[in-house]
Amino acid sequence: MEQPILLEKIHSPQDLKALPEEDLEYLCEEIRHLLMGTVAQNGGHLASNLGAVELTVALHRVFHLPEDQIVWDVGHQSYTHKILTGRVSRFYTLRQEDGISGFPRSSESEYDAFIGGHAGNSVSAALGMAVANSQKGNGNTAIAVVGDGAFTNGMIYEALNNAGRSGQKIVVVLNDNGMSISKNVGAFTKYLSSIRSTSSYFHFKDGVEKVLRHVPLVGDSLVQAASHSKSVIKHLFYNSTIFEDLGFSYFGPVDGHDLKALIQVFQRVQQIQDPVVVHVQTIKGKGYILAEKNPGAYHGVSSFDTEVGNPDTPSDDSFSCVMGKHLCELARQDGRICAVTAAMKYGTGLHHFSSEWKNKGRFFDVGIAEEHAMTFSAGLAASGLVPVYAVYSTFAQRIYDQVIHDGSIEKRHVVLALDRAGVVGDDGETHQGLFDVAMLSNVPDMVIYSPSNYRELCQCMDEAIYHHEGICAVRYPRGSEPSIPSKYLPDGVEYGLFGPKDAKKLLVTYGRLYGEACRVAQRFEERGESIALLKLTQICPIPSEWIELMASYPEIYVVEEGIQHGGLGEHLASRLLLMGYQGRYHLRAVDNHFVPQAKVDHALKKLGMDADSIEQWMRCQ
Amino acid sequence: MEQPILLEKIHSPQDLKALPEEDLEYLCEEIRHLLMGTVAQNGGHLASNLGAVELTVALHRVFHLPEDQIVWDVGHQSYTHKILTGRVSRFYTLRQEDGISGFPRSSESEYDAFIGGHAGNSVSAALGMAVANSQKGNGNTAIAVVGDGAFTNGMIYEALNNAGRSGQKIVVVLNDNGMSISKNVGAFTKYLSSIRSTSSYFHFKDGVEKVLRHVPLVGDSLVQAASHSKSVIKHLFYNSTIFEDLGFSYFGPVDGHDLKALIQVFQRVQQIQDPVVVHVQTIKGKGYILAEKNPGAYHGVSSFDTEVGNPDTPSDDSFSCVMGKHLCELARQDGRICAVTAAMKYGTGLHHFSSEWKNKGRFFDVGIAEEHAMTFSAGLAASGLVPVYAVYSTFAQRIYDQVIHDGSIEKRHVVLALDRAGVVGDDGETHQGLFDVAMLSNVPDMVIYSPSNYRELCQCMDEAIYHHEGICAVRYPRGSEPSIPSKYLPDGVEYGLFGPKDAKKLLVTYGRLYGEACRVAQRFEERGESIALLKLTQICPIPSEWIELMASYPEIYVVEEGIQHGGLGEHLASRLLLMGYQGRYHLRAVDNHFVPQAKVDHALKKLGMDADSIEQWMRCQ
Repeated sequence: MEQPILLEKIHSPQDLKALPEEDLEYLCEEIRHLLMGTVAQNGGHLASNLGAVELTVALHRVFHLPEDQIVWDVGHQSYTHKILTGRVSRFYTLRQEDGISGFPRSSESEYDAFIGGHAGNSVSAALGMAVANSQKGNGNTAIAVVGDGAFTNGMIYEALNNAGRSGQKIVVVLNDNGMSISKNVGAFTKYLSSIRSTSSYFHFKDGVEKVLRHVPLVGDSLVQAASHSKSVIKHLFYNSTIFEDLGFSYFGPVDGHDLKALIQVFQRVQQIQDPVVVHVQTIKGKGYILAEKNPGAYHGVSSFDTEVGNPDTPSDDSFSCVMGKHLCELARQDGRICAVTAAMKYGTGLHHFSSEWKNKGRFFDVGIAEEHAMTFSAGLAASGLVPVYAVYSTFAQRIYDQVIHDGSIEKRHVVLALDRAGVVGDDGETHQGLFDVAMLSNVPDMVIYSPSNYRELCQCMDEAIYHHEGICAVRYPRGSEPSIPSKYLPDGVEYGLFGPKDAKKLLVTYGRLYGEACRVAQRFEERGESIALLKLTQICPIPSEWIELMASYPEIYVVEEGIQHGGLGEHLASRLLLMGYQGRYHLRAVDNHFVPQAKVDHALKKLGMDADSIEQWMRCQ
Repeated sequence: MEQPILLEKIHSPQDLKALPEEDLEYLCEEIRHLLMGTVAQNGGHLASNLGAVELTVALHRVFHLPEDQIVWDVGHQSYTHKILTGRVSRFYTLRQEDGISGFPRSSESEYDAFIGGHAGNSVSAALGMAVANSQKGNGNTAIAVVGDGAFTNGMIYEALNNAGRSGQKIVVVLNDNGMSISKNVGAFTKYLSSIRSTSSYFHFKDGVEKVLRHVPLVGDSLVQAASHSKSVIKHLFYNSTIFEDLGFSYFGPVDGHDLKALIQVFQRVQQIQDPVVVHVQTIKGKGYILAEKNPGAYHGVSSFDTEVGNPDTPSDDSFSCVMGKHLCELARQDGRICAVTAAMKYGTGLHHFSSEWKNKGRFFDVGIAEEHAMTFSAGLAASGLVPVYAVYSTFAQRIYDQVIHDGSIEKRHVVLALDRAGVVGDDGETHQGLFDVAMLSNVPDMVIYSPSNYRELCQCMDEAIYHHEGICAVRYPRGSEPSIPSKYLPDGVEYGLFGPKDAKKLLVTYGRLYGEACRVAQRFEERGESIALLKLTQICPIPSEWIELMASYPEIYVVEEGIQHGGLGEHLASRLLLMGYQGRYHLRAVDNHFVPQAKVDHALKKLGMDADSIEQWMRCQ
């Protein structure tokens, strides 16, 4: 495309407000070109952002940021917002190291009112802001823009239940593109499509009311009877009862690509002092024909060619796909096995399982409802089925209580397939899988495996399913297996110890980092100064014999791709000290901070977890 | 009361089915007497159980347990169920050590289909069971009995959203007593009362439909128009749209104390193969006039006298009340301070705050919606208010992700007042506060205080509010402060070190156990063999100087009223070993198991955490 003309003038939302109305559509076109160019280059969320262009322009045209606040849910639809709030010139750094985040971040801009990496938090946060606005009496509006996918999440309901009766000035924009991340699930979705299909009642209403009034006696009493319940007549014609039952005024559905209509409805809503829902219908992928036709494939993409339209599909060469395919094999032999996902069918590699078993009632996509998914799995387990709940490590943070209360206490046999464990790359802080080991290993009787390669992943799944009771987690990283020399491959799923028995230094690690550890061992070996290598596959529990084994080495080095406090490294240290270990212990883990976006390799390097850094560290102690 | 006659015959639900119908009401009376007598003796949940007597009898009369499954939500309404399922003779052991649990426990009885200590899990679990029933083709019914309070919880919505479209045989019984634990909040509550008040439409319906049909042309077309949306006419008259919008057939409201009506509706529902909601209206405290008039006070009680009706009200001599009152004082000075609770206004001692500040919009009871409460607090904080979110340690397990994602990453200044931290006593496994330290201390930049007495509690609250950014937790136990000799009282909120500098043994602890530790120190001193005592008040983060201080003692003993894996003891051990500590380290914590119900003192004794046990342990090493 040519250089943008209008975007060049937009340094803040003030500049957008100054633009002549007739330029807005062209501005949207420029934004779409920028979105496509940047996402094609850097990867990111394309379809949802293409769908939200007019909606975002209209919001910024009407409301006054940063005094008014917009909370994006999920935040990956906020690219246009970023472009319009002073970040157009840096937008080419989207999702790159030290660049613009793919999600709203208050630390990045005062226009990003709240963080938005995990779904369902927006109405809660916006309600907090609305309360503060009201206390300050500043008249500002707190706005939550919620994708319809997030409406499958319980937090949204908890927040709506509170917001509806709050009397606060809060606007909930339901950005309804009829899709969750892959596709929406549940009764709420059906409900939304029923609203859409009955929008003809809009036109119908006036006529009918008039007719009713003009039928003598019967008509009048009917209208009167209907008015007994305050909005019964509205229900009949608008059928928007859920939101109104929850205490909101409801506007919609509005065409999310009709700028005039959007601006008009927001102008009207701006005047209302009570909770409002604006239902906006958008087309995911709008304006890019390949994305419009296949929005699922373009949801979150790596770089691709805009002409050919060639997004990364889930690669066969990934832990996710290997897990998904192996589970299919197991399910063919064992009718008890079923699979559960919270709106991540593709990401977790369960699309294979879905194709094969959905119609037989053994695959469940529950929507963005991680908590329900865990307890639902425990319910399946209570009746003798064997559920495998595949969930990203970062989203598993939502199920800590369900793991303890609904799973662990009664020893429900649920297998957690924890995908994206460890550093995830471009999505940054909100999506790193750094807490699962610390979080899960404090749960009584928890068993955790952390395979380093595909073969081990399959072995661990077998172990988890067939050789354990209670909850068992198998965690594995995003992407493909590291290269591991065959001589360093252990047989089983417990641990592998390699190198000379009289080695002074023992290097301990697990998961993906074992690939780096092997390279370190080889380098030492090449220089004739061998180290021992302990590769843990079962990382919880750790039998005492293993600690004794470790204790026989005078120097222990542990490298852990996870948070340090409460992680495996601290646990091993504690066990060693309790046993009276007198040697030297060194630990490298993620120490009390979040890991920002960067390519995985580079992030690991910055954390000192690549082979070079580990080797240097071991030599300097 | 006299000895029960009918109850003596009920050894299983089969016996209940065999009872002549005319005996059922008398049976209910016997059950009420047993409930009152036992709860008066042992403490427990009175009002909710008195309200659910007929409902439970009717369920067991119609359904066939354990083939059919009932999941109780929250489980504290399951006493009658326990009485009817072979536990009448042991019911006097309710909530006592080695006795009957106050909540459903599969480990206790095959009739308890699922655990029920934390609200909102029932429909998820029951849906899992329904799916399994359907796969097995056994025709059994999975039933969730849900208090209306649990309907403020997001998990219920996530589960309803999935159950409604599932086509499974699942019955959701809404036990609507118009109360949450104290009182219900939110739009959903208003919605329920609107259903109740519009039940007259039932009678109204037929007449109107007839009239409509008889108005020539207009009437017919109206009926036809209404039928376009499948249940529009039902909405108009029944106004039960939320459940029907979610895909359930709706029955109700039914009088929850009319046995015949209940049995009739369950018999009808039993035949239905699709998801059903039965809306039952009960009176909390039914049959005990003092409890009926003041159900909030009788929600969860310690032992009381049935004649006088004297339940324990929140005692002034408790950490909870001290926190609540101190917060009131702070709020009078500082307009930014506000308080948030998830349906635990009384339990957390926030009733003082509520009386004073609710009308000024500074107190928020959000319902049983812990996740929302955390993110709502983060939203308040994002706008410059200072929210104190008071929540039981066990329920804080629900907010791990919100603490990380919505709080910690952007350093939102939210103060968590973690009540019931540590062993809680009679409520057992599901309610122990043993995980908060392990859970929270792995979150970057987290600050955690664990005061041992009221004065420290107030100091810690001040510190948390005024001297920290980001999330700060103050955790304290259930009940009253332990007695601590004044010579062992530290000045500040960091730590206190007592005893001779050249002591060989250092005893380290925090929180309530410090009282026991002081007694241990005194006993050693009395025998002329002094030990040193390190009392940590700030338990996260631990500065390196403190580790160095500890390292100067050759023997360290740490006692921790919390889970061992990931707790403070393991962290200290790790830090010591990393620093090259060569002394002996001993740790006593809750090691990889759940702690069953027992009086707090006795539970601590069994854990080896009373002064006697600690002394003995320190002498034997």
